[in-house]
Amino acid sequence: MTTTPSSARIIVTGGTFDKKYDAIRGELTFDESHLPAILEQARVTLPVALEVVRLIDSLQMTEEHRQEVLAACRAAPERSIVVVHGTDTMAETAKVVGAARLDKTVVFTGAMIPYSVQGSDALFNLGFALATAQAMPAGVYVGMNGRVFPWNDVRKDRSSGAFR
Amino acid sequence: MTTTPSSARIIVTGGTFDKKYDAIRGELTFDESHLPAILEQARVTLPVALEVVRLIDSLQMTEEHRQEVLAACRAAPERSIVVVHGTDTMAETAKVVGAARLDKTVVFTGAMIPYSVQGSDALFNLGFALATAQAMPAGVYVGMNGRVFPWNDVRKDRSSGAFR
Amino acid sequence: MTTTPSSARIIVTGGTFDKKYDAIRGELTFDESHLPAILEQARVTLPVALEVVRLIDSLQMTEEHRQEVLAACRAAPERSIVVVHGTDTMAETAKVVGAARLDKTVVFTGAMIPYSVQGSDALFNLGFALATAQAMPAGVYVGMNGRVFPWNDVRKDRSSGAFR
Amino acid sequence: MTTTPSSARIIVTGGTFDKKYDAIRGELTFDESHLPAILEQARVTLPVALEVVRLIDSLQMTEEHRQEVLAACRAAPERSIVVVHGTDTMAETAKVVGAARLDKTVVFTGAMIPYSVQGSDALFNLGFALATAQAMPAGVYVGMNGRVFPWNDVRKDRSSGAFR
Repeated sequence: MTTTPSSARIIVTGGTFDKKYDAIRGELTFDESHLPAILEQARVTLPVALEVVRLIDSLQMTEEHRQEVLAACRAAPERSIVVVHGTDTMAETAKVVGAARLDKTVVFTGAMIPYSVQGSDALFNLGFALATAQAMPAGVYVGMNGRVFPWNDVRKDRSSGAFR
Repeated sequence: MTTTPSSARIIVTGGTFDKKYDAIRGELTFDESHLPAILEQARVTLPVALEVVRLIDSLQMTEEHRQEVLAACRAAPERSIVVVHGTDTMAETAKVVGAARLDKTVVFTGAMIPYSVQGSDALFNLGFALATAQAMPAGVYVGMNGRVFPWNDVRKDRSSGAFR
Repeated sequence: MTTTPSSARIIVTGGTFDKKYDAIRGELTFDESHLPAILEQARVTLPVALEVVRLIDSLQMTEEHRQEVLAACRAAPERSIVVVHGTDTMAETAKVVGAARLDKTVVFTGAMIPYSVQGSDALFNLGFALATAQAMPAGVYVGMNGRVFPWNDVRKDRSSGAFR
Repeated sequence: MTTTPSSARIIVTGGTFDKKYDAIRGELTFDESHLPAILEQARVTLPVALEVVRLIDSLQMTEEHRQEVLAACRAAPERSIVVVHGTDTMAETAKVVGAARLDKTVVFTGAMIPYSVQGSDALFNLGFALATAQAMPAGVYVGMNGRVFPWNDVRKDRSSGAFR
């Protein structure tokens, strides 16, 4: 029976997933990543390395930022990698990493509703991506909406907010 | 590149995952499954068949109940199956299904804290299991604590509540 | 022993209290008021009339809008009135209503964090205001931060977000 | 215009309000009181003294325990007191304190659903009680369901869970 890897890396870039309400400014913004708290809540015992590359909205992602994500994936000693990313340009960054043909399983995920907001899909998506990163063969994927999409055949439908 | 299945089945048996606080009786009990609401919250677009076999505490699971779970797995037309189960005897039911050597991927999951309680691991675990059920080869697994365990090498550590 | 009124009115104007995350637009906005759901969650059995005057950010409140709030307070048959209002200009609208010297108890409240966001003060503040509206003599008050402020001696400290 | 007191005391006795899910034992139990976290979440700036007398289910309250609550109310330097109490015997303890005719405003409250469980009425009720304790004349009250009940005319309807 196939066995799964014994560790994983989560690369954090921000996105809706990690936004937090700033009561003074009255808007959603970035403070610290919720990932450490989430891994505790999820009772994860798998050794997971957390790496915060950026905490930005994915609409602000430049080509340079995408190269940073690729560099982080390349440098990671782990074979299983989850990239937490804003959904708006997730497919674009996945293409940059996918084209590099790393011998690793890299799974992009994010959230349509922040972890800190009622009814969030963040926890589900992170769990989904962490399993995909362990169980799928080497390659780059988007894990959203309960589906695994290959990096070269995925786009976000802006009107419904779902990936296809 | 490997592609994942186009549908899945979630077989619900109850467990801590699905417990709800009954304000009149003042205790956690079973009402209706939270699964339909959870799949909506998670914005799942994968076609998922939901099948409620039982809504019981896994300490009340008898051999007959486990055979019901096996029968449901066997009868399912889907290749990817998640079984939501109480954690206390999850490993036992996984052994019953595992021994049947079905040509399907069956992933048991549950929660240490109910979905309806603050700080629950339910959403994460369901996402984790749904991905595992799609991405792993045929076999029976327990998906808990961010790890995938084969059915014949897993047990719950009662003192920490974690699977090993 | 003093008895409290047998009914109350909640006048909704929007504000942070009632903002909801719009997953498609990726921002907090107004949809429907959360008040009906909140009164059910709070298990309120007091007859409460709900009146939605506006669903706007209080920074967008014009003098005309404030006159609408005053008119709604004046027209209300109930003696106990809660006005749910954005915090930024709550004190200004309270002054407009206070100067009218109605023979009613009107309590302004709101939230620094939306009801729909983790860690919200909305439920607490609504309970606080509803009690104040029943228990205080006629007058206009701001009920925030666990304190009752008279309308003519209150302001929001923008740096801390607290009323003084 | 009437002014409200400049401080308050919250006396904690446990009850459903403060129950927390114990993931290992799989049941709702008492750990530490949630009151400090709740006062922070509610952004309370009123000086509030917190006093934990007991953390028990109100069905376990003995006459001796009720005398402890009375003694704590009597000893409190504050004029405004909230007692967080299980709902099942809240009316009984309120009668013990009410009969003592203290020159203070004492408001009993609790929750039908724990603070730590989705859909809880705890925050609303605490806000309601804290306002009642400041705004009502000396006396002993139950503040539940958005209503203020005098201690000598209140009972819990077990079938609906509401006070009358």
